[in-house]
Amino acid sequence: MEQLSQAYLEKTVLQSKPFSADGKVKETVPGINSTVEGSLGLAVCTVDGKEFEAGLTDYRFTLQSISKVINLMIALQDAGPEAVFKQVGMEPTSQLFDSVKGLTELGGHKPFNPFIDEGAIAITSLITGKNSEERFNRIIKLLRKITGNAKLRMNEAAYEEAKRDSSKSYALAYYLESESVIENGKVEEALDLYFRGLSIEVNALELARIGAFFARDGYMNGEDEPLIKPDHISIMKALMLTSGLYNDSGKMAVQAGIPAKSGIGGGIVAAATGIMGIGIFGPALNAGGNSTAGMEALKHLSRNFDLNIFKRSSFNPDKNT
Amino acid sequence: MEQLSQAYLEKTVLQSKPFSADGKVKETVPGINSTVEGSLGLAVCTVDGKEFEAGLTDYRFTLQSISKVINLMIALQDAGPEAVFKQVGMEPTSQLFDSVKGLTELGGHKPFNPFIDEGAIAITSLITGKNSEERFNRIIKLLRKITGNAKLRMNEAAYEEAKRDSSKSYALAYYLESESVIENGKVEEALDLYFRGLSIEVNALELARIGAFFARDGYMNGEDEPLIKPDHISIMKALMLTSGLYNDSGKMAVQAGIPAKSGIGGGIVAAATGIMGIGIFGPALNAGGNSTAGMEALKHLSRNFDLNIFKRSSFNPDKNT
Amino acid sequence: MEQLSQAYLEKTVLQSKPFSADGKVKETVPGINSTVEGSLGLAVCTVDGKEFEAGLTDYRFTLQSISKVINLMIALQDAGPEAVFKQVGMEPTSQLFDSVKGLTELGGHKPFNPFIDEGAIAITSLITGKNSEERFNRIIKLLRKITGNAKLRMNEAAYEEAKRDSSKSYALAYYLESESVIENGKVEEALDLYFRGLSIEVNALELARIGAFFARDGYMNGEDEPLIKPDHISIMKALMLTSGLYNDSGKMAVQAGIPAKSGIGGGIVAAATGIMGIGIFGPALNAGGNSTAGMEALKHLSRNFDLNIFKRSSFNPDKNT
Amino acid sequence: MEQLSQAYLEKTVLQSKPFSADGKVKETVPGINSTVEGSLGLAVCTVDGKEFEAGLTDYRFTLQSISKVINLMIALQDAGPEAVFKQVGMEPTSQLFDSVKGLTELGGHKPFNPFIDEGAIAITSLITGKNSEERFNRIIKLLRKITGNAKLRMNEAAYEEAKRDSSKSYALAYYLESESVIENGKVEEALDLYFRGLSIEVNALELARIGAFFARDGYMNGEDEPLIKPDHISIMKALMLTSGLYNDSGKMAVQAGIPAKSGIGGGIVAAATGIMGIGIFGPALNAGGNSTAGMEALKHLSRNFDLNIFKRSSFNPDKNT
Repeated sequence: MEQLSQAYLEKTVLQSKPFSADGKVKETVPGINSTVEGSLGLAVCTVDGKEFEAGLTDYRFTLQSISKVINLMIALQDAGPEAVFKQVGMEPTSQLFDSVKGLTELGGHKPFNPFIDEGAIAITSLITGKNSEERFNRIIKLLRKITGNAKLRMNEAAYEEAKRDSSKSYALAYYLESESVIENGKVEEALDLYFRGLSIEVNALELARIGAFFARDGYMNGEDEPLIKPDHISIMKALMLTSGLYNDSGKMAVQAGIPAKSGIGGGIVAAATGIMGIGIFGPALNAGGNSTAGMEALKHLSRNFDLNIFKRSSFNPDKNT
Repeated sequence: MEQLSQAYLEKTVLQSKPFSADGKVKETVPGINSTVEGSLGLAVCTVDGKEFEAGLTDYRFTLQSISKVINLMIALQDAGPEAVFKQVGMEPTSQLFDSVKGLTELGGHKPFNPFIDEGAIAITSLITGKNSEERFNRIIKLLRKITGNAKLRMNEAAYEEAKRDSSKSYALAYYLESESVIENGKVEEALDLYFRGLSIEVNALELARIGAFFARDGYMNGEDEPLIKPDHISIMKALMLTSGLYNDSGKMAVQAGIPAKSGIGGGIVAAATGIMGIGIFGPALNAGGNSTAGMEALKHLSRNFDLNIFKRSSFNPDKNT
Repeated sequence: MEQLSQAYLEKTVLQSKPFSADGKVKETVPGINSTVEGSLGLAVCTVDGKEFEAGLTDYRFTLQSISKVINLMIALQDAGPEAVFKQVGMEPTSQLFDSVKGLTELGGHKPFNPFIDEGAIAITSLITGKNSEERFNRIIKLLRKITGNAKLRMNEAAYEEAKRDSSKSYALAYYLESESVIENGKVEEALDLYFRGLSIEVNALELARIGAFFARDGYMNGEDEPLIKPDHISIMKALMLTSGLYNDSGKMAVQAGIPAKSGIGGGIVAAATGIMGIGIFGPALNAGGNSTAGMEALKHLSRNFDLNIFKRSSFNPDKNT
Repeated sequence: MEQLSQAYLEKTVLQSKPFSADGKVKETVPGINSTVEGSLGLAVCTVDGKEFEAGLTDYRFTLQSISKVINLMIALQDAGPEAVFKQVGMEPTSQLFDSVKGLTELGGHKPFNPFIDEGAIAITSLITGKNSEERFNRIIKLLRKITGNAKLRMNEAAYEEAKRDSSKSYALAYYLESESVIENGKVEEALDLYFRGLSIEVNALELARIGAFFARDGYMNGEDEPLIKPDHISIMKALMLTSGLYNDSGKMAVQAGIPAKSGIGGGIVAAATGIMGIGIFGPALNAGGNSTAGMEALKHLSRNFDLNIFKRSSFNPDKNT
């Protein structure tokens, strides 16, 4: 096995970066343009708090769909799994990241899972708060604690852009209303919270800290009580593995075997339970909306540190010494 | 944590059996009828060879879709992952077990994954052998070794029934031929091997031994060389987790977190890597084609022996003592 | 051939009315409830102005989807066929009246035809006018002239109900916006006009007059210039025949062969070119949203007065004597 | 109105032929290749037997999907409409000519209509005869009489090609078997008759005579009894109008308003009831499988001879003098 180090990460960035040539940036995302298309930032936080980074790890970009896993986390905490999964299913689909098929193929009249757009919109209403702003403040407060960045905030331009380019989200939200998944009259509020979440700005290191928090099953180092129930974190990780990378989820389950969630801002957060969190910024995306260089880096890390949950050794680390 | 024992399994069978009331047997499957509808057999083999069983574990039933994971295993060994995944995808779908939707929604003109019918039919041709009989003999030989039952064989009545009730399989196979996934003129042979696989007869204990073989990453106890490459076994387990239980796959990933594969004969094989294999016979199926009592038993085992791969303790068992 | 008369219509109402037992009223439509479920009103206007009626022909009900053909007529007049069919297609679909499938299966990124909901919403913007109210006034003015009812107006309760129960329409409209079929920011206006149209109140006799206007290819009796270009009327009639009765369109093309348009308020307007217009009020609907008694009456009229455009005699009546 | 004449047809061929540049021949069809790509043959038979032709009207090509309307005709005669429409629906779809969607979207578990492949295969079993050969002989015999060509026959090369390239048809047929639309064990026979029909060889003039036969509602000139019941012919024409030109059906209903059926051999047969039959050979096809030059010629004929069934004058020819 490799030794986790600054040098290792730098080598991995070098080996993975060329894969960004197979992808393209999503220029409609504020802050993302051709100047970062070839970039890759890779950060690792071990569960006991050691941090390593290489490449463009201080570039701030928006969570985009990664916010769906944050929203899910808080919805699970606020409403409990039963209420959450009354609202959305748990089944992976094979749809593209910008599909609206779920619109007409709700599984049992609810979105297939919380990571497709309609599912993500559906669960925002389960987050406690008077309105979308108050709900959002709870999200930001939690993320500030987890990332250690007290200034973590929403990117206003991204929020404005999300509101501007929102027709498809409105279509989904109204369809959910028509199917009584969203309560009558709550479309605007659901979407506002959804758009705010998409617009939260992080860097790769902060993502790695979020991943490490998942890898610690919801515990902050040095605290006795978990911030989020371990049972809820494991639910999230199961969904990340089966559905976190759009229609590359199955392939990455096979090739890396690490629960991960991606966003079209180029981010990927991954969590190797009990071992490490991984944060990636790789804005060149494949047709499926996932970072090409980022997925390559994940495969390296999985192979080199035995992170694949379907492999024996990761379960019996002591046998590998 | 519970102590794994005969008594534990008996208690679990008692607690899970009532869930068979939520399901129904598939009477078209030979050997399956109302007299076994309320039954449940549960067997566990630990990776180091201890065996426990409770309930109806000596009833012989047919693998049905569980054969898909066996075929995949041998196809991976014979042709390698690259060739296999040129033929089929790795993405989970949200389709019902008897759906033919994949027919018209082939992902990139190939079946979404090797566990939907069209995918399973597609990969049979990658198994080495002059004809379907020779190919089948290789499968049986391997399974005899893994299960320790030198008399393991195909149930002739089930094979005849599979051939008789084959219109949908023929439709799928010819569609694959039209899409050049199956080579021209090879439909009959592909289907024959597929039907033979469905008809292999096992009991719950034998299934548990197969699960234990997966849990040992392809090693037989006492042998230095793996029978099947560990890398291939981990591919199979990833696919089992994302797609092994039809449209309950996502739910069971969340609720049990153990790679598993089911068949409409009532069987479930599950593999907790490095820990144990689980074999279940629970012929009462839900609408999705999965054993209702069997899934309940899986949840018990997962909870009581920390088998959920998305939970921390299963990765670092020594830290939890 | 039968003699067109009051007595004939009364007989036809008697024979057709029992078919309302196969349908059910749509109680969410204002003015429609179980007290009219068994009713049938049947009115005929010949192209030269003779009028006959039988049954419940003075009951006022809302146009609902029949307004789609009116909107199409005015859009064709205002923008011309080329502009209209840049916005929507002309192809029949096999979808149910309340399907939102078109949402995700737009043919070439535009609605399949102007009679499915998304198509109907799409063309409202082609009607000339500063805003939806002004546009609506043009529609009402034209309909007042055609029906001879100077007091024709919108049913306010129906309009309110349409706005209240509008989630699905909003979903469709925003999806159209996301596909650039509806211009950015015009969703509200498009829907307002659409809802107003649905809510226009008529009776069966007025519908028959509208049908006769279609049968006269857009001419009012006694006027030299057509109100609407004959070419546009024939376009509308072609679309009515292929798509006017939702997924009963094909069946009624075969069984009656008369261009017709239905609405879930129970109305059907039909036009036998050069012969007569037919207006029907039959609020008991089948699962496809069409009046069961009304379709039966149409078949009677078609058979008895040779109105089937696929039959020889209707084209050359004098050759058949 | 134009005068129907040799000169008129020659002018129309000249005007329409350039539209073949928008299409492409289907080279897999025997006899069809680039040497005929720019060709157009146009023949007209009036209901009283006058014949006109221009362009490539003696080139022999295969019926392909035009055979579906012939099979339907004979099935209606042999089994009656009730039995036919128990087997297939009457609803137009918006699917492409080579779609297999009907496979998974049977309307009420039967093919949507008799002109999509699965519908056409489904009805072959309703044609009386011991086996597919005997059934086929009845078809050929009837077509010889209608076309006046005693030597009309199947093109053997086309039949062989149809059998060779038959995977998709087999897929459809077995799916129909699985849905009990085709009786168990009858797939081979159904397909054999279907393939034979596709392979019948005609020229444009013969197609025009078939069209004239439809235009005469099933009567041969000079005979008192119809060969086929007029009611059945009108059913066929209704289906031709709504579904005869694949997904150009709606457009051509609007733009020409003449019942027509096309085949990928380049043929179109059209029937203006009481007026004329039209036969076209235009092998350059659009993406929808229809002759581009042929559809243009149809529009000319419709406009110049008032053949549009949705226009007033065609119903009242005497009013237009």
